Amino acid sequence: MGFKVGVVGATGYVGEELFRILCRHPEVTAMAAVSRDFPGSSLDRVFPHLRGYVDLEIMELEEIPALIEFSDLVFVALPHGLSAPVVQEVLGKGKRVIDLAADFRLPEASLYEAWYQMPHGAPELLREAVYGLPELFRSAVCAARLVANPGCYPTSALLALAPLMKHGLVDQESLIVDAKSGVSGAGRTLALGSHFSECNENVRAYAVATHRHTSEITYYASVLAGGKADVTFTPHLIPMTRGILSTVYANLLRPCDASSLRQVFREFYAGEPFVQITEEGEWPETKWVQGTNRCYLGLTIKGRCVIVVSVIDNLVKGAAGQAVQNMNLMFGFPETAGLAVPGLYP
Amino acid sequence: MGFKVGVVGATGYVGEELFRILCRHPEVTAMAAVSRDFPGSSLDRVFPHLRGYVDLEIMELEEIPALIEFSDLVFVALPHGLSAPVVQEVLGKGKRVIDLAADFRLPEASLYEAWYQMPHGAPELLREAVYGLPELFRSAVCAARLVANPGCYPTSALLALAPLMKHGLVDQESLIVDAKSGVSGAGRTLALGSHFSECNENVRAYAVATHRHTSEITYYASVLAGGKADVTFTPHLIPMTRGILSTVYANLLRPCDASSLRQVFREFYAGEPFVQITEEGEWPETKWVQGTNRCYLGLTIKGRCVIVVSVIDNLVKGAAGQAVQNMNLMFGFPETAGLAVPGLYP
Amino acid sequence: MGFKVGVVGATGYVGEELFRILCRHPEVTAMAAVSRDFPGSSLDRVFPHLRGYVDLEIMELEEIPALIEFSDLVFVALPHGLSAPVVQEVLGKGKRVIDLAADFRLPEASLYEAWYQMPHGAPELLREAVYGLPELFRSAVCAARLVANPGCYPTSALLALAPLMKHGLVDQESLIVDAKSGVSGAGRTLALGSHFSECNENVRAYAVATHRHTSEITYYASVLAGGKADVTFTPHLIPMTRGILSTVYANLLRPCDASSLRQVFREFYAGEPFVQITEEGEWPETKWVQGTNRCYLGLTIKGRCVIVVSVIDNLVKGAAGQAVQNMNLMFGFPETAGLAVPGLYP
Amino acid sequence: MGFKVGVVGATGYVGEELFRILCRHPEVTAMAAVSRDFPGSSLDRVFPHLRGYVDLEIMELEEIPALIEFSDLVFVALPHGLSAPVVQEVLGKGKRVIDLAADFRLPEASLYEAWYQMPHGAPELLREAVYGLPELFRSAVCAARLVANPGCYPTSALLALAPLMKHGLVDQESLIVDAKSGVSGAGRTLALGSHFSECNENVRAYAVATHRHTSEITYYASVLAGGKADVTFTPHLIPMTRGILSTVYANLLRPCDASSLRQVFREFYAGEPFVQITEEGEWPETKWVQGTNRCYLGLTIKGRCVIVVSVIDNLVKGAAGQAVQNMNLMFGFPETAGLAVPGLYP
Repeated sequence: MGFKVGVVGATGYVGEELFRILCRHPEVTAMAAVSRDFPGSSLDRVFPHLRGYVDLEIMELEEIPALIEFSDLVFVALPHGLSAPVVQEVLGKGKRVIDLAADFRLPEASLYEAWYQMPHGAPELLREAVYGLPELFRSAVCAARLVANPGCYPTSALLALAPLMKHGLVDQESLIVDAKSGVSGAGRTLALGSHFSECNENVRAYAVATHRHTSEITYYASVLAGGKADVTFTPHLIPMTRGILSTVYANLLRPCDASSLRQVFREFYAGEPFVQITEEGEWPETKWVQGTNRCYLGLTIKGRCVIVVSVIDNLVKGAAGQAVQNMNLMFGFPETAGLAVPGLYP
Repeated sequence: MGFKVGVVGATGYVGEELFRILCRHPEVTAMAAVSRDFPGSSLDRVFPHLRGYVDLEIMELEEIPALIEFSDLVFVALPHGLSAPVVQEVLGKGKRVIDLAADFRLPEASLYEAWYQMPHGAPELLREAVYGLPELFRSAVCAARLVANPGCYPTSALLALAPLMKHGLVDQESLIVDAKSGVSGAGRTLALGSHFSECNENVRAYAVATHRHTSEITYYASVLAGGKADVTFTPHLIPMTRGILSTVYANLLRPCDASSLRQVFREFYAGEPFVQITEEGEWPETKWVQGTNRCYLGLTIKGRCVIVVSVIDNLVKGAAGQAVQNMNLMFGFPETAGLAVPGLYP
Repeated sequence: MGFKVGVVGATGYVGEELFRILCRHPEVTAMAAVSRDFPGSSLDRVFPHLRGYVDLEIMELEEIPALIEFSDLVFVALPHGLSAPVVQEVLGKGKRVIDLAADFRLPEASLYEAWYQMPHGAPELLREAVYGLPELFRSAVCAARLVANPGCYPTSALLALAPLMKHGLVDQESLIVDAKSGVSGAGRTLALGSHFSECNENVRAYAVATHRHTSEITYYASVLAGGKADVTFTPHLIPMTRGILSTVYANLLRPCDASSLRQVFREFYAGEPFVQITEEGEWPETKWVQGTNRCYLGLTIKGRCVIVVSVIDNLVKGAAGQAVQNMNLMFGFPETAGLAVPGLYP
Repeated sequence: MGFKVGVVGATGYVGEELFRILCRHPEVTAMAAVSRDFPGSSLDRVFPHLRGYVDLEIMELEEIPALIEFSDLVFVALPHGLSAPVVQEVLGKGKRVIDLAADFRLPEASLYEAWYQMPHGAPELLREAVYGLPELFRSAVCAARLVANPGCYPTSALLALAPLMKHGLVDQESLIVDAKSGVSGAGRTLALGSHFSECNENVRAYAVATHRHTSEITYYASVLAGGKADVTFTPHLIPMTRGILSTVYANLLRPCDASSLRQVFREFYAGEPFVQITEEGEWPETKWVQGTNRCYLGLTIKGRCVIVVSVIDNLVKGAAGQAVQNMNLMFGFPETAGLAVPGLYP
């Protein structure tokens, strides 16, 4: 028998990363790939580093039904807007699906439509979609047919915010998330903003206070806080390939010292295989998590301002790795299966 | 006749940058250099890119008196703590001096001693030292014998904060400065934190809420606001050589829209040769100012949160360029002399 | 009066670099720009670092006649194949022109057609085109109506090869040029090969032994040697924006020692303002020439193998700077006008 | 029972990399670490990315005897000159050892002394040391007590040269190896040459024709060719952390076409788990092997010049990974144990 997975949208960075992780996964015995680009090629011609690890031919979009038929689980790594119909089709055939686009992350179609400026493709499915941040919504993930895999920025921000929100420690209406991302977060699609000579030796803010992930961070911060949160989110692009470091600022509602707060975080994430709280005075670096599904959190307090620094690899914990973590939960595999590797350093 | 300058601490990045700028300065006719490292070498052996532009032999520390004698103006580019005695000596000989270290930036010895953990070397000079941020303190700079050149982070932060402080637009007790710096800010001295393989493809926060520049930003923000300011300052190191981008967050005291605020900034910096306010929706990038003395400011408002993004080249507007701008003011040269060059892009 | 220049193809990296240099040129009083992209925009919206230095509106392709009319000299910075008709038009109107594409670099249409796989657009002009490498063909440049500005790789290679060829010191039929280029050499046009995440933390060879610049290097090496040369040329892309380092290998025809050879190079380039020969044991770095029109050459001998290392900034000496140097010669300006600036380091 | 390894020199990049690989090795059940730096610390304080994977306290140099006692195999990752006495001690206690320094790579003490400018510390062991390049000397490795792990440059060069040498296809006296290395090859020890601001956005040649690895490449090229080889070796430092790309040039002794030569390479490396020959027109990139023990080889022929391009990760196939491959052979484990992971891309 074995466990078979299909990936729709196989030749972007998230698709690539799924194969890099899944090819070492102890439960996965077969894989299939669909991509608009490069149909008919072998996947390892497109991604030579996978040669010898993944041996399959890329199917074209028309073959999605066959891919669904083949698979026990389908990952959809398409741009937002394109994933909804594929997700419908997978569910319609009685299979389970993890969507890595934004389509099912917000539970209300109106919210999606306001931020993404297009009608939602499958609003009837929003109710059953589960937001796949396992550290916060594990039991729902286990039972889900449809998991909406979180965005990279929201993952880094929400893991930093969650203990503060859940314990009501800070003013949830004045949250600031200042994020610094590597360029792979912008995907493999060509754009001047991802052109080497424009990004290298450069840093810039973009979509300040208007980035779409603002809606996702705000929504789940509110859920966690049990009341309306307000988040000012400023993403920055820095000259590296992988990694996101988010610096989160929030105002304490009552005095607290850093070591007590650290203890709160330690307890909140006790037993979590992928979240680490650093020691006092130790600040996490994205290089610590390069290629891994981990998140490190460091924190301190200045006056009434809490500062939490969070690092993840945007393509792993921020995308493909978290999707595999969700798969593990959905199918009863060990949560760390395929994901227990130390980061690549230096 | 002509105008002669001496540089003490000639072989760090700030010293190098002074020579790169001064060798094209229309008023400077001769230069001298002192350095603990490489005494007796020609400067262009240490910095081959200066070959043909700067032709002088590096003098040793013992020759500081001769350098002072030679110079109309002395730049001191030594580590903090070491500059005070040299500054004393220069002033004692009746010459003027620009100190690029931290020793004279804070007007109270106790503040210096609290943040720098050492006794101040020349407290009697603090009263007359002028903080050399020309856009804010131009007339004092013109008349100064001793200019304390601002730190790189404070320059980027204070130019972003000044219009807000001066006009009393925001709550000065909840300021946040989230800064991203290139590695040259850490100087040419070897350290694991500046080692290529540790910095490349990496981002980290450091000295969170405890960085020494916090004191300088806070002090001058208070001066500008006319009351006690409070600043949470988080510096980050990103994998590039030059540039600082500071993202500043502050809470509006009364409603305001972005275009009015932009107008406030435009008027505040009207006529300033080195400060540019970007258009709505245009966010500045450090690459725009690479190698220049410029600062670009972009801004927006989200709810009651003002967000200002500021970019400078840390070695130019953040150090050597601003020092030359101060020199120009002190000696009645055109303020942009030697500094009117477009940035190197891409 | 004054001297007016026009740039066709203004919004690529070479176009940008021409404006960056020309805006500081002491003889140039006015400029005009044509570009297919961004017509009607002001140039400093496209290149914000030029704000305050260049103030002009980009004209569309249809306005080329007006640009020619306006200009004393036209720079054509279009892709190969597109430049020939513009060059014809400029000459037809009695103006002089510097072409930065490949169209007029090889004096035989057949050679062009073999390497560039397209018919030549103006073969009748090939005879009078002058190859604009001033250190080797200065007097011809001075008299030229049409200068073909050399490619970036050929500039770096030929400056390293010339003394060897001219003096007949090496076997001209076994030359090897191993070149390492920054990514800006591939231009501003989007391509997967210039995508940040593909280039960063990576090095690759490309077009091995088939790169089009092979023809240019080989042709002029032959001219210099006075006989047929053979060149194996291997370009590599490395993760930086600017700079080319070429390592040239050749076999000595008769024994020679490195210090004699260094003397040969010193004499060959005596008086050249832009070529520097390094000291024994000192190897040039691209950072030494960042933003400048310089070429540094270092050399040694191992057995009968001569090794010459050459560095340039591909956008300056390899393109726009050399074009301005050619302009200076064509119009009797000082050869270094607008180009005498030290490199940006670090 | 299980298999226990000790690492002497645990806190450099090679030491780190050994732990990163060994912690996932299916046969290794326990590890010990000695380092001059950080004795008494836990290893995961020095290398936070290893937290949760490696849990041990760093022992001091004085505890080497205890480490040897503990271990079934000792890896020595010390600077050259320091490793010889440790190797002696390990063998004296009847244990086996893999030395990652240069001390035992050349079988003649005089050669070592000429290139490394110091007396050899254990010349009596040279005879039995085996050069640990498994693809070329597998059977000797299997039987060895003392394996000298090859240098990073020699590994990349010799894998490219071996088929040419073994088949006598090229003139072995005119070999050229032009190598481009990431900065981690220079280790974790601080040096201006590894300082971020000096390396970033820069490329330089160094130790041209005098680099110590010349001796190692030349010696084993001669062994493979069965006669004296001559190698011109030019290393370059490029702005990335990991990876070496070597471009090898050699002159054919008799005509040959690229596809036949490709076939020769394919047969030479048939069945090798870590060597891949690329397709015609496909050139390998270091990013394909990032974090892996693989070597990709691409090749072509121009006239009589063979060009082979070889890529490895300098810290894996060029150091720690190859050492583990040697360990696997020495102890009868599957050769790919712990090493069968796809590279990290992008």
